[in-house]
Amino acid sequence: MSNFQDIKQAAYRANMQLPELGLVLFTFGNASAADRERGVFAIKPSGVPYVELRPEDMVVVDFDNNIVEGTKRPSSDTKTHAVLYKHWSHIGGIAHTHSTYATAWAQTQQDIPIFGTTHADHLTVDVPCAPVMSDKMIKGDYEYQTGFQILNAFQEKGLKPEEVEMVLVANHAPFTWGTTVEKAVYNSAVLEELARMAYLTRQIRPDAPRLKAALIEKHYERKHGSKAYYGQE
Amino acid sequence: MSNFQDIKQAAYRANMQLPELGLVLFTFGNASAADRERGVFAIKPSGVPYVELRPEDMVVVDFDNNIVEGTKRPSSDTKTHAVLYKHWSHIGGIAHTHSTYATAWAQTQQDIPIFGTTHADHLTVDVPCAPVMSDKMIKGDYEYQTGFQILNAFQEKGLKPEEVEMVLVANHAPFTWGTTVEKAVYNSAVLEELARMAYLTRQIRPDAPRLKAALIEKHYERKHGSKAYYGQE
Amino acid sequence: MSNFQDIKQAAYRANMQLPELGLVLFTFGNASAADRERGVFAIKPSGVPYVELRPEDMVVVDFDNNIVEGTKRPSSDTKTHAVLYKHWSHIGGIAHTHSTYATAWAQTQQDIPIFGTTHADHLTVDVPCAPVMSDKMIKGDYEYQTGFQILNAFQEKGLKPEEVEMVLVANHAPFTWGTTVEKAVYNSAVLEELARMAYLTRQIRPDAPRLKAALIEKHYERKHGSKAYYGQE
Amino acid sequence: MSNFQDIKQAAYRANMQLPELGLVLFTFGNASAADRERGVFAIKPSGVPYVELRPEDMVVVDFDNNIVEGTKRPSSDTKTHAVLYKHWSHIGGIAHTHSTYATAWAQTQQDIPIFGTTHADHLTVDVPCAPVMSDKMIKGDYEYQTGFQILNAFQEKGLKPEEVEMVLVANHAPFTWGTTVEKAVYNSAVLEELARMAYLTRQIRPDAPRLKAALIEKHYERKHGSKAYYGQE
Repeated sequence: MSNFQDIKQAAYRANMQLPELGLVLFTFGNASAADRERGVFAIKPSGVPYVELRPEDMVVVDFDNNIVEGTKRPSSDTKTHAVLYKHWSHIGGIAHTHSTYATAWAQTQQDIPIFGTTHADHLTVDVPCAPVMSDKMIKGDYEYQTGFQILNAFQEKGLKPEEVEMVLVANHAPFTWGTTVEKAVYNSAVLEELARMAYLTRQIRPDAPRLKAALIEKHYERKHGSKAYYGQE
Repeated sequence: MSNFQDIKQAAYRANMQLPELGLVLFTFGNASAADRERGVFAIKPSGVPYVELRPEDMVVVDFDNNIVEGTKRPSSDTKTHAVLYKHWSHIGGIAHTHSTYATAWAQTQQDIPIFGTTHADHLTVDVPCAPVMSDKMIKGDYEYQTGFQILNAFQEKGLKPEEVEMVLVANHAPFTWGTTVEKAVYNSAVLEELARMAYLTRQIRPDAPRLKAALIEKHYERKHGSKAYYGQE
Repeated sequence: MSNFQDIKQAAYRANMQLPELGLVLFTFGNASAADRERGVFAIKPSGVPYVELRPEDMVVVDFDNNIVEGTKRPSSDTKTHAVLYKHWSHIGGIAHTHSTYATAWAQTQQDIPIFGTTHADHLTVDVPCAPVMSDKMIKGDYEYQTGFQILNAFQEKGLKPEEVEMVLVANHAPFTWGTTVEKAVYNSAVLEELARMAYLTRQIRPDAPRLKAALIEKHYERKHGSKAYYGQE
Repeated sequence: MSNFQDIKQAAYRANMQLPELGLVLFTFGNASAADRERGVFAIKPSGVPYVELRPEDMVVVDFDNNIVEGTKRPSSDTKTHAVLYKHWSHIGGIAHTHSTYATAWAQTQQDIPIFGTTHADHLTVDVPCAPVMSDKMIKGDYEYQTGFQILNAFQEKGLKPEEVEMVLVANHAPFTWGTTVEKAVYNSAVLEELARMAYLTRQIRPDAPRLKAALIEKHYERKHGSKAYYGQE
């Protein structure tokens, strides 16, 4: 029996949720769950159809991208996951999808504007879009550099990954995270819905204004602030 | 056994219908059922996933927002429900969703124009959008003030809540109501479809004219007028 | 046992198909099946939810709108069905929905342009949109006049109901028909897909040209012409 | 027992997948599987509803369009399949759908621009749109000429069918292929998703730039190049 049974099981369940939530077609996505004490994460193997996936297929990798357990090749995006786990010590799970609306926004190379309280319930800023990577980064260790492109975007925009748990990578697709992989998958579904609503808002009214500061603050605080009163204690 | 078994059961069933009708993602919505004789309503607890929800979890609250029965914290939107029940004495149920198309219209801060008879079968005016709340209202007792923002919008526009059973709150999302909570949920689904059709109508023809008076009157009268001939007697 | 068992059963099955095909929300639609020998048709009762509907609930009506059998009130659109059956002697079934995309086009008061062979496989002209009815027609016997609005539109445009089995009524919604009610329902689903494709085509390329004559003819002929080679003999 | 049991079974399964993946309405599509050794392919019979389809209904046809086995009339698009099999000797399966977004692009007579890595994971160029056929081609042996229209488009654009496994036929709809019929169906689903994402990208940002060369190359190479590291070995 594996020492990593719990994260393999958590990663398996999270990966299976992605098609159930309508966030991936075929194998266009992956999710991983970290064990911070052991310094590893479990991730989906590359290119295995969801219907064939089993918990024991999950590959265990450390934060420097070394395979610790597993016979299959891990997801081709594994290095991106490793970089984020290594540099953002609080996160416990990551999800990556090519969900339709979020990916369309990524293809426009634009942030998703904060237009309403559905958005503000989750983050107080536009969903950031990390810029297109330089040719040098792409031609180098691409997936590793994708991780740094995300880190850099957060640094340049002054964002904290504890507060903003989602990003678009320009011309590619979204990544989301959280303290657990369940939260990361939840954030992928929320992001897709925010992307869809923002798309429709712009279509109906191209000059729709961003949400005003007082509402942004209020909705975020009631869910995440020190006096939060959303959910059960 | 609870004295409020019937409204707790009705509220439970109504809340479960919201995801079944595709109107809510995760916990982004809530419905409540009132007992007018006892002056209370049953509402969903805050942030509990729909799959875990049970009838006994419903929280019973009076129209001044005092908890009468229940161990869980009620929905964070409870005060808005309470205000509407208190001031609109004929309504028996309320639903609140962040359904995609209705919320997109709310984010544009615009009324949904009446473009066809599907709309006129339900209401004879544009779906009203209550304006963005003032910073003072937002920073005060926000959910309580949201109720008043809706009341004020109806007063200013000269609308009657018996005839117009739905509203958008600008930058937030829709609220709907009815004499029963089943009707309130029905209205949430109708509103989402009206919002979607109006969106498509505008996309195909940006200058599409509003429905003319004779058709508005005819369709509303045949469903709701004194000589109504829609449905069974 | 009813003398009209077969058309009641056919109408029942057709009505149940409407929500299964995603063409109606709640009770926003109806289908009817005619018995030409007896000069009657069976139609859905008004406002009965699809989940409660039973074959024996169907109401049998003659082509002058007299109820022949049934205890329930027939669909509020029954007179429109009666007019079409009376004047178009070859049709054996009618369906009426408020399907989303077709209704949006109806709300724009525009024909649906023929943009591709999917359309030409079914009809060789734009899907006609009958103009908005006059106030006099609306204030008179509305549903009866709706039937005549459709007849008039076909006459003015020189269309034959044997060749064009679908119409939009401006600001209202589509009606479709066929030699059987199954074909009428099939046409409702086809129309909704044509409406959706035409919408997307216009969004992607506002000046997209209509399909050229040679392709229109070819696709229609291979399915419907004297030398048709589509389907089994 | 048929000598062609395996391709009939493969073609049957592939045809059944088309509605399961949401790619066809009613009978608007067909898939075929080739047996290269015997120089034949199995294809869906014309106009038979998917729910009634059985493996033994598949019709076996050679690459010159002669029926080799089967009592039913083959799909009306059979000649197009035959032409592609005859001239592209490496392909083992073909799928043809009228999927909504891909068909809308075909109706605009435009290539689908490559906007992101989801696209580049599958092909390094815009999805080609074969131009509208000449009246002469249409009035001649239409389905046979449709095959040549596709061959000509690939030749003129300098594309290789081993690398680009999908095409739009202007004003008609997509065709996709692969070394197996499973891959052909997979490509139909991928194409529909690329078409949908490209549509949304253009709607959000009409001047969205095409994907830059370095990213195109990287994503394609990691899945298809000599050093591919996507999927299991």
